Amino acid sequence: GAAGGGWAQVIPMEDINLHFTGDFHAIGAANNLLAAMIDNHIYQGNKCNIDPRKIIWHRCVDMNDRQLRFIVDGLGGKANGASREDWFDITVASEVMAILCLSKDIDDLKARLGRIIVGYTYGKQSDNTEKPVTAGQINAQGAMAALLKDALKPNLVQTLEGTPAFIHGGPFANIAHGCNSIMATKLALKLGDYVVTEGGFGADLGAEKFLDIKCRFAGLKPSAVVIVATVRALKSHGGVAKADLEKENLDALKKGLPNLLQHVENITQVYKLPAVVAINAFPKDTKAELDLVEAECKKLGVNVALSEVWAKGGEGGKALAEEVVRLASQPNQFTFSYDEKASIKDKIEAIAKKIYHAENVNILPVAQKQIAQLEKLGLDKVPICMAKTQYSFTDDPAIKGAPKGWTLTVRNIKISAGAGFIVAL
Amino acid sequence: GAAGGGWAQVIPMEDINLHFTGDFHAIGAANNLLAAMIDNHIYQGNKCNIDPRKIIWHRCVDMNDRQLRFIVDGLGGKANGASREDWFDITVASEVMAILCLSKDIDDLKARLGRIIVGYTYGKQSDNTEKPVTAGQINAQGAMAALLKDALKPNLVQTLEGTPAFIHGGPFANIAHGCNSIMATKLALKLGDYVVTEGGFGADLGAEKFLDIKCRFAGLKPSAVVIVATVRALKSHGGVAKADLEKENLDALKKGLPNLLQHVENITQVYKLPAVVAINAFPKDTKAELDLVEAECKKLGVNVALSEVWAKGGEGGKALAEEVVRLASQPNQFTFSYDEKASIKDKIEAIAKKIYHAENVNILPVAQKQIAQLEKLGLDKVPICMAKTQYSFTDDPAIKGAPKGWTLTVRNIKISAGAGFIVAL
Amino acid sequence: GAAGGGWAQVIPMEDINLHFTGDFHAIGAANNLLAAMIDNHIYQGNKCNIDPRKIIWHRCVDMNDRQLRFIVDGLGGKANGASREDWFDITVASEVMAILCLSKDIDDLKARLGRIIVGYTYGKQSDNTEKPVTAGQINAQGAMAALLKDALKPNLVQTLEGTPAFIHGGPFANIAHGCNSIMATKLALKLGDYVVTEGGFGADLGAEKFLDIKCRFAGLKPSAVVIVATVRALKSHGGVAKADLEKENLDALKKGLPNLLQHVENITQVYKLPAVVAINAFPKDTKAELDLVEAECKKLGVNVALSEVWAKGGEGGKALAEEVVRLASQPNQFTFSYDEKASIKDKIEAIAKKIYHAENVNILPVAQKQIAQLEKLGLDKVPICMAKTQYSFTDDPAIKGAPKGWTLTVRNIKISAGAGFIVAL
Amino acid sequence: GAAGGGWAQVIPMEDINLHFTGDFHAIGAANNLLAAMIDNHIYQGNKCNIDPRKIIWHRCVDMNDRQLRFIVDGLGGKANGASREDWFDITVASEVMAILCLSKDIDDLKARLGRIIVGYTYGKQSDNTEKPVTAGQINAQGAMAALLKDALKPNLVQTLEGTPAFIHGGPFANIAHGCNSIMATKLALKLGDYVVTEGGFGADLGAEKFLDIKCRFAGLKPSAVVIVATVRALKSHGGVAKADLEKENLDALKKGLPNLLQHVENITQVYKLPAVVAINAFPKDTKAELDLVEAECKKLGVNVALSEVWAKGGEGGKALAEEVVRLASQPNQFTFSYDEKASIKDKIEAIAKKIYHAENVNILPVAQKQIAQLEKLGLDKVPICMAKTQYSFTDDPAIKGAPKGWTLTVRNIKISAGAGFIVAL
Repeated sequence: GAAGGGWAQVIPMEDINLHFTGDFHAIGAANNLLAAMIDNHIYQGNKCNIDPRKIIWHRCVDMNDRQLRFIVDGLGGKANGASREDWFDITVASEVMAILCLSKDIDDLKARLGRIIVGYTYGKQSDNTEKPVTAGQINAQGAMAALLKDALKPNLVQTLEGTPAFIHGGPFANIAHGCNSIMATKLALKLGDYVVTEGGFGADLGAEKFLDIKCRFAGLKPSAVVIVATVRALKSHGGVAKADLEKENLDALKKGLPNLLQHVENITQVYKLPAVVAINAFPKDTKAELDLVEAECKKLGVNVALSEVWAKGGEGGKALAEEVVRLASQPNQFTFSYDEKASIKDKIEAIAKKIYHAENVNILPVAQKQIAQLEKLGLDKVPICMAKTQYSFTDDPAIKGAPKGWTLTVRNIKISAGAGFIVAL
Repeated sequence: GAAGGGWAQVIPMEDINLHFTGDFHAIGAANNLLAAMIDNHIYQGNKCNIDPRKIIWHRCVDMNDRQLRFIVDGLGGKANGASREDWFDITVASEVMAILCLSKDIDDLKARLGRIIVGYTYGKQSDNTEKPVTAGQINAQGAMAALLKDALKPNLVQTLEGTPAFIHGGPFANIAHGCNSIMATKLALKLGDYVVTEGGFGADLGAEKFLDIKCRFAGLKPSAVVIVATVRALKSHGGVAKADLEKENLDALKKGLPNLLQHVENITQVYKLPAVVAINAFPKDTKAELDLVEAECKKLGVNVALSEVWAKGGEGGKALAEEVVRLASQPNQFTFSYDEKASIKDKIEAIAKKIYHAENVNILPVAQKQIAQLEKLGLDKVPICMAKTQYSFTDDPAIKGAPKGWTLTVRNIKISAGAGFIVAL
Repeated sequence: GAAGGGWAQVIPMEDINLHFTGDFHAIGAANNLLAAMIDNHIYQGNKCNIDPRKIIWHRCVDMNDRQLRFIVDGLGGKANGASREDWFDITVASEVMAILCLSKDIDDLKARLGRIIVGYTYGKQSDNTEKPVTAGQINAQGAMAALLKDALKPNLVQTLEGTPAFIHGGPFANIAHGCNSIMATKLALKLGDYVVTEGGFGADLGAEKFLDIKCRFAGLKPSAVVIVATVRALKSHGGVAKADLEKENLDALKKGLPNLLQHVENITQVYKLPAVVAINAFPKDTKAELDLVEAECKKLGVNVALSEVWAKGGEGGKALAEEVVRLASQPNQFTFSYDEKASIKDKIEAIAKKIYHAENVNILPVAQKQIAQLEKLGLDKVPICMAKTQYSFTDDPAIKGAPKGWTLTVRNIKISAGAGFIVAL
Repeated sequence: GAAGGGWAQVIPMEDINLHFTGDFHAIGAANNLLAAMIDNHIYQGNKCNIDPRKIIWHRCVDMNDRQLRFIVDGLGGKANGASREDWFDITVASEVMAILCLSKDIDDLKARLGRIIVGYTYGKQSDNTEKPVTAGQINAQGAMAALLKDALKPNLVQTLEGTPAFIHGGPFANIAHGCNSIMATKLALKLGDYVVTEGGFGADLGAEKFLDIKCRFAGLKPSAVVIVATVRALKSHGGVAKADLEKENLDALKKGLPNLLQHVENITQVYKLPAVVAINAFPKDTKAELDLVEAECKKLGVNVALSEVWAKGGEGGKALAEEVVRLASQPNQFTFSYDEKASIKDKIEAIAKKIYHAENVNILPVAQKQIAQLEKLGLDKVPICMAKTQYSFTDDPAIKGAPKGWTLTVRNIKISAGAGFIVAL
């Protein structure tokens, strides 16, 4: 369940966790329709010359079903398709999900669906006889859009106190951009004075993608950023074991704080946005600990506000809200962390060095070959969606704090041409 | 699309043909959850001793996807399940669909889901070491029911003229009972003075299942039966080729009429229900033809009413409605065509001889063995769901009219223990 | 084991039943080399445009291995081949076995190997874009012939009494022609005064193929035919149960005799060869029974000789041998049962009517389509190899005697272009 | 082809490279018979409770057939076996090959075949419910031995000059012990005054296995060791590129010589055997180079002899032969490099440190778990067969010379219980 807790929850919770308005089912159906159309295209003579071994589009199921992780389908002789190795993805990982969230309207949706690369033709990369094949080439985008026309509409829910909220889309935060739909955000902007939207997981993960991908595509300019932290998590970054997190430990907190401060500076120095740190209050947090966080943030010119929404509802978020209103009233020089027209390598390095604070980027040979192909195909001038862990600034979930001098390894590069970004794994 | 045509259609037609209220998605999700739980049960030590080669529960997809007709799943080594041959059904063929339609309420739904037989244990039938394994034994019924709780509620739509109608459930008419849900019918009976419900395809198919299965389970007693016919179809039964159906042909009509009359007699003599024949009017029907139908039906004491609803809306169905009201006001001695406590063989013979007018029933050895096992398991005292063609009284779609002296062949017997019937193929 | 019994056996029996001179291994290796070369051809760019779904050449193993009856191979991603449904044949069923037996010398062997059809190209039969692909087109015949060069040489063994015998090749008697190699027979003719060769199973099966296929290819003209019978088998054809075969039963024998007489007339009237009936003596045969057989055969102008070789060795076959010598000294008008240049349908009908004494031949639509394709490809002017049961003149093993008025059903037609015949199943 | 070249070749070369005496076919047949018996055992009720996912015995084919590298077999429903992921090995890698080579006689062969571990039962290692299942438990050893009885007999061939030689068995040198059969060596010792046998690849690979595995099993005590080297290879170890190997380069030779010297010292210091270095002469070797090799070997008390057998036949090996005769006449203190009763870890470390001159051994967690299981099963007191590269003393083929201070990584441990050794990968 991802509907929040305490007073900070949205309702109807049970529906949200089950079928809700059927958006995920519609996404699954559109995803699977495309898959069936690809195989049917091959079956009907394969006009597009798709190499079945190079199909990269997979069916999906809205559940983690072990039995479908690796399958052979198309068995039963020639009349039942061409046998090939295949697997099912989980629905939230479907590119259709990312596309739904990044589409401005039904026409944009259809255009993006048509640009999905479903596989490659027979032939070789080396002599340019291998070509990408898109959903548009097999005319799947219209039927897919018909299945998605209702899912495209944002879903309005409310908090326990009646504040309206949109819940719309749920793309994976690693192989996709991880945040709410553009249509929901724009609709909210039309309807409300202030719109708060979430970019989950670490700010290097969620905020980076929200700012560099979603804001770029939507033409959005954020007014202020709330960086959420907990004293517990900072102590954990300082090396405290889980069982001991409830004890006051100023030394560990001090050791863990650079993690928060690096996130703060990323927002204020790289993206040039005003920020406030919201501490999600836990009962065992001590005053000395809270003061320490506040003092360190102050040194960077950033205020700290205690958030007690979980326990007290809207009332508990008042101080934070006032600081946000204050920040939002100031002008800002919002800037992306990289230019989307730069080379893939440069874009990855920009994120790795400016946001993750890595020293080097090691692009493995397979990924280099993939980059070369995307450049050859002219598909490289788009934002980068980094698949990274939420537990560390680095690519190793076990490394805490704010390390320097490390090397980021990129193993795989893959285009989500419909969504409009390149995934780096 | 199955929303009707002309003035005889329900709206919102497009939604009904796409996701509608998401019932099919929920059924698919519940079906697939059970499938995943079976494989997971085996993976986690297989406490129920399920033989993977004897799993009879399949995943489903709401589309006719050739590539999924025959697959091998669970590949990728021991960590990704046990490899086995498998396939996807189409959602409407899922036993979950039949169960949803036959459940009286959420508790009945849960109980039926728990009774689904998902497969059999290791061991042999011959020495009674092979046992059925149910969804209840792996505790899947609760989670499945949670996914189905909203789908269980009937969906209210309307005709173009605003008459309310329920559209709820769509079980296959061959391997399932083929009609609307019990809950929809009962709700309609609560809300309206007269409830008309459809038992599609030939009356030997749709009406037989509606009367012997649905009415039996729901405790329903119909007041009157409308047998729908067209002059065109009767001429086709009389041997006229499709291209010539628009020409008047009284000889052929006379040759085809026994088909209709046998349906009429099945209703009035076997089920002992009052009946009216509704002729769906086509522009090229001639008066002589309509008169002939009327005269022949009269001989059986049954009136004929012309139905022009397609062209004229409710107005066009007035005469028919009046006859139905008249019939419904009479008492009737509604009787099933067989006793559900009879042996499987006797029940099949009753349907074959009384309704289909076959002379013999040939139960092939495989089916005999299956019957023996169901009897041994005590699962045989339930209604029979005959998988038969809609195009003929016989088991050969090409044989027209009302043939006698033929032999029905039964190749396969399979229990749908959750739905509560036995399918004869 | 197929080395015979009693004094009528060849030695070294154990070796013959195990690896013998390795011929079967060589045939298996050649068969599997071709299979590997086909997949490798596809892997290396598929210059011949082979449709993997239409490969008809299969790997083989010299054992009945259930686990290999249906497999998917080429799994493991693009680097490990293209996945496809496949199966293993049993080595004796390999076309390589038939080719080895029908080759005149190493050059003929190579030429035949090159003509093997391994599959078909992408494309459709209907528009002539589907073409056969041969082993020669992928240059496999040379390497295959190298593996077979020693296996091509006949193997000399001896009977217990020291009579030399060749054992060479063992093609299946249903999908292949079922008899010893041409090279062995020709070598024997060079070395001996009289050569006896076996055409196993019923004379409608073994003798028909020996005469119409092997003699035709080899240019052999037999001098006389020995038709082997037992009183037991004739009583069985007359309806006696296995347990009662040891009791004298002249009525049953009389009822069963037409089976033998029809075989005799096939040889003398259709093939126009002199014949003798050899009765394999069993201890419980009575004089009255033997006399009855003799009398009936006499009516057809054919002598009967008792064969006691099993019990007495060569001495026990003297009478038979003398009759064979007598017959062989007469001139004969050996004729095939059909002209190989006739149409496939005519050739099948000739065998069915003249040899099996069927009244009609029913060629199913699938087989008709296959015939049409072979005619289109110009591959139809070759002998027919009928896959039939050895237990009956008809296509139903349970029908005894010499029935008339029945219909032969042909379900499948397949070319063995290397062997040089068409198999009718 | 592995029959040698120049005057140093054995004949009949073509036969040796094709089927030869059919030994490989017999080994393949025995291997595949066992595989079929395992699946049949499961099919017939699985009395031994074999978990199909844990079968470790694979079918084999005497060819590198890409298409069979990863397959799913047992498809086609319950009647055709249980579907499972599988693959084909290459015949030479079959444990049957290793067993044939290590067997003393037919009884020993049978006993070893019976000890083969074919898989494991259902159950878990952690609670000791998982047990190994042997070929003996499914009674396969007798039939396998029958197939192998002729293959067990050594094959006598001759050199071009008529010197007798045995060619018998060809186990892989990585997952098996890599040398000729014990029976061939013992037979040769019975028949000749001096027997020369080959332990191919680097002396750390071939000689180590010959001495620690084959000599141990056979009770052989070698009289002297010939270490074969070429000037070219030593220069390559000294860093010279392939294209430049023909030029004199004393510096590179000096840099490469430690590789040879370490092999020499392994033989003389670890195994305590007298040794001679044989230089296979190449036309462009210079006198200065040969002198340098000789001088460096002399320092270790070992003579060098030029071998010109390729060019001159036996005459060209006279000097070498005389030195061998001299060495063989001396007594020696032959010692194994480890005690087979030591722990697996100690045995691996002994080989790694004494022979490879590694500083550390890193046994990965998976391999540690496998070691723990073998110890639990009491299967650990046997020699170790190291799967290593022939190109380097280390586990990285690119590292030349005689490096020190490196760490050997062991990823996998697997028992060949029939062969009687443990393979470390």
